[in-house]
Amino acid sequence: MTPDEFRAAGHAMVDRIAAYLDSVGEQRIVPDIAPGDVYAALPPTAPTTTTDLDTLMADIDRVIIPNLSHWQHPGWFAYFPANTSYASILAELLSAGLGVQGMSWVTSPAATEVETLMCDWMLDLLDLPWSFRSDTATGGGVIQGSASEATLVAILAARWRATQGTVNDTGDTSRLVAYRTAQAHSSIDKGLRIAGIGEQRIRTVAHDADLAMDPADLARQMAADVDAGLQPFFVCSTHGTTSTLAMDPTAAIADAIDTVDGAGTHCVWLHVDAAMAGIAALDPDQRWVNDGVDRADSYCTNPHKWMGVNFDCTLFWTVDRHAMLGALSILPAYLRSAAADSGAIDYRDWQIPLGRRFRALKLLFVLRLDGVEPIIEMLRHHLRLANDLAARVAAHPRLEIAAPPRLGLVCLSHIDGDAATDALIEAVNASGRHLVTRTEVDGRSLLRVSIGARTTAAEHVDALWDDIHAHS
Amino acid sequence: MTPDEFRAAGHAMVDRIAAYLDSVGEQRIVPDIAPGDVYAALPPTAPTTTTDLDTLMADIDRVIIPNLSHWQHPGWFAYFPANTSYASILAELLSAGLGVQGMSWVTSPAATEVETLMCDWMLDLLDLPWSFRSDTATGGGVIQGSASEATLVAILAARWRATQGTVNDTGDTSRLVAYRTAQAHSSIDKGLRIAGIGEQRIRTVAHDADLAMDPADLARQMAADVDAGLQPFFVCSTHGTTSTLAMDPTAAIADAIDTVDGAGTHCVWLHVDAAMAGIAALDPDQRWVNDGVDRADSYCTNPHKWMGVNFDCTLFWTVDRHAMLGALSILPAYLRSAAADSGAIDYRDWQIPLGRRFRALKLLFVLRLDGVEPIIEMLRHHLRLANDLAARVAAHPRLEIAAPPRLGLVCLSHIDGDAATDALIEAVNASGRHLVTRTEVDGRSLLRVSIGARTTAAEHVDALWDDIHAHS
Repeated sequence: MTPDEFRAAGHAMVDRIAAYLDSVGEQRIVPDIAPGDVYAALPPTAPTTTTDLDTLMADIDRVIIPNLSHWQHPGWFAYFPANTSYASILAELLSAGLGVQGMSWVTSPAATEVETLMCDWMLDLLDLPWSFRSDTATGGGVIQGSASEATLVAILAARWRATQGTVNDTGDTSRLVAYRTAQAHSSIDKGLRIAGIGEQRIRTVAHDADLAMDPADLARQMAADVDAGLQPFFVCSTHGTTSTLAMDPTAAIADAIDTVDGAGTHCVWLHVDAAMAGIAALDPDQRWVNDGVDRADSYCTNPHKWMGVNFDCTLFWTVDRHAMLGALSILPAYLRSAAADSGAIDYRDWQIPLGRRFRALKLLFVLRLDGVEPIIEMLRHHLRLANDLAARVAAHPRLEIAAPPRLGLVCLSHIDGDAATDALIEAVNASGRHLVTRTEVDGRSLLRVSIGARTTAAEHVDALWDDIHAHS
Repeated sequence: MTPDEFRAAGHAMVDRIAAYLDSVGEQRIVPDIAPGDVYAALPPTAPTTTTDLDTLMADIDRVIIPNLSHWQHPGWFAYFPANTSYASILAELLSAGLGVQGMSWVTSPAATEVETLMCDWMLDLLDLPWSFRSDTATGGGVIQGSASEATLVAILAARWRATQGTVNDTGDTSRLVAYRTAQAHSSIDKGLRIAGIGEQRIRTVAHDADLAMDPADLARQMAADVDAGLQPFFVCSTHGTTSTLAMDPTAAIADAIDTVDGAGTHCVWLHVDAAMAGIAALDPDQRWVNDGVDRADSYCTNPHKWMGVNFDCTLFWTVDRHAMLGALSILPAYLRSAAADSGAIDYRDWQIPLGRRFRALKLLFVLRLDGVEPIIEMLRHHLRLANDLAARVAAHPRLEIAAPPRLGLVCLSHIDGDAATDALIEAVNASGRHLVTRTEVDGRSLLRVSIGARTTAAEHVDALWDDIHAHS
């Protein structure tokens, strides 16, 4: 492809994307197909002749786009918001076009420093603790690919600190114990498993009626483990659980940790997983979502969920850079540089993989082209829609609010029980106009309505409500 | 930003990228700045007013682009190739525009199935073993974000198989031992460390004069570990080491494993890390780079290095899907689906993170718009340039070939020793017209010339040679 062909093809692609996002609400939100259908509709081996963009896009329009699940659809009430924005798409395009590798400062200085700056900008905008700032030298922020990776980094830093670094030599994790509630995200258990913390040493802490962690039970379980010769090393406090946006009480959890940890020893690592809810703090009225984070060793939240930054962009901060680098730094000759020796940040040591894209451009573009005000407006709009929906559910004779509504999430169930709730979910999704997902809390079936797509308007929630009402 | 504003801005961005790639050779290849310079040139807090794309791009042209290391520069002889192509940039743009989440089949069926198809297309094009194909049900392919992640997945699958799955419960890795040479990539050790295999149980196998693993030493060390009551569980065979593109002898390594493993027990996992070299097998003349892979449990190579697919795109295949899923699968209620129950692939269980982008589009676009022929031509062109350079080095009175030249890589040193080689590297890089990197092999300093940028022509290697010659 020549530069001129790229220009023409690129313009056409931009127009195609604009048209897609403009009209995605007219698509069936999820395809009605069986596994294997898409594969079978495409050639089984690589073509021996090339094609032009028009032909390729015609195939994509025929086979691929109708068979996506449309996360940008205004009727997307499933899973979690993953809204994108035009500014963020432009940034992803620029990142691909520049084609730089930001694994260390020296492999692309501006990629590293813009990332540090974006972490600082976001720290201010979210009103997070100053101790997370990179220029403290003890703390710092980084963009991870996902909250799963951020969690794993936190676990590995915790493992290193709890063993005073000996884990790197011995691999011995046999005394370490981790704590979270049954409502914590599956990535916590996956990260612990990867790090060699078996299920035998993952404790399920009791939760209260609002599905928030019970700090007294945490303290009891940690004390019992200490008595048994084990070593509590990691606690995950979730700010906004996946199922219901339940909020664990981080300050009380930190107090509970202090009862076994001894003031100042800082052996147990407290990680706050605010992947879902943390970004709501862009709105000054919602700063409560990060209450207690000043007590945490690390924290993550996802601009790629509710801020119009397209996946992937997870913000991760820690106050203990030393432990993180101890856990993750490996320095072969081909990665050494004078800059690193002089203290420049090499983000490869802040993450699981080595290579990394120039993801900071996405935050830079969203914050400079759109600004934070439209995002706050979007959040408030979604909150109003969720409040209205919750009120309608509460007033409905055959439905009930199944968990405290929070931010953009409303969880409901049918008063006739799980079978009725499951049937309602299936009926509501059958139209293809919108999508909700099911979850289970304490063995009970819930219909989740997660409001957060960029173009979701009152009419889309009304249409959903019409279907819910009709099938209740 | 309105759809019309996005169209205009998108067209301008496409043009800006075309201009960048057209003229990147005129940039100083790496900036002459100190850590902190870029950060200091930008506002310390997020702006309170928005700006238009022209203003933003002017700032980017002023502060960011001159301070990148230009991996797409035709004088890029550093680290490894990371060449991008126009087709791949278009695909990344489309992926960002569609904004779908491919974590499981049901969250975007086409994203999953196109990925499976691209793995099968690439399997054919690289002439890799049929046992890696996804439709075997026992094997399968997936796109990872990086070779580091692919390696970690292989280690975790190996750990699960070697412990018959008990590691998920106990976290006990205390008997497991891993093997690689000193030439293996740092990501192997990092992955092992993450998985709880301490340095005490990572063995450095001897290498021969060509820096390839000595299978007899591997067999000896494994036998000694078995005698000591330990359990060999993972061997990494590198096809193209980072420092010198050395090739470990995978078939002989597999034979060595059989001596301790017992025929048919398949307890020790053999992973082939062909991140650097494997993609050369697109050229039928270079299929030797994957010799012995039919004996491996898993394999990875990077289209994002030498195939014009922009980062990130690592291909990973295994013949033991069962062990991989045993290691990585976790299924909470909010991720369950009927499709998964019926056997659809959920790629979230094939990787470390949960979320995933629609990366398969990059392979689809490159293979359909450009085809494989121009890639093979590019590879051959790079090989000719490397051969010519190696001949010039060999004929030079004060230089010597420091490791067997392979594919696009030439490693050389000054006959006066390490100080002279290091001074030569510094002098060659001072012009800013090209960049080479230093490595160390067995304590000796080497100048690496890695030829693989898409637009590198004879004139660029000539200019490099002029500098090398002038300073030797």
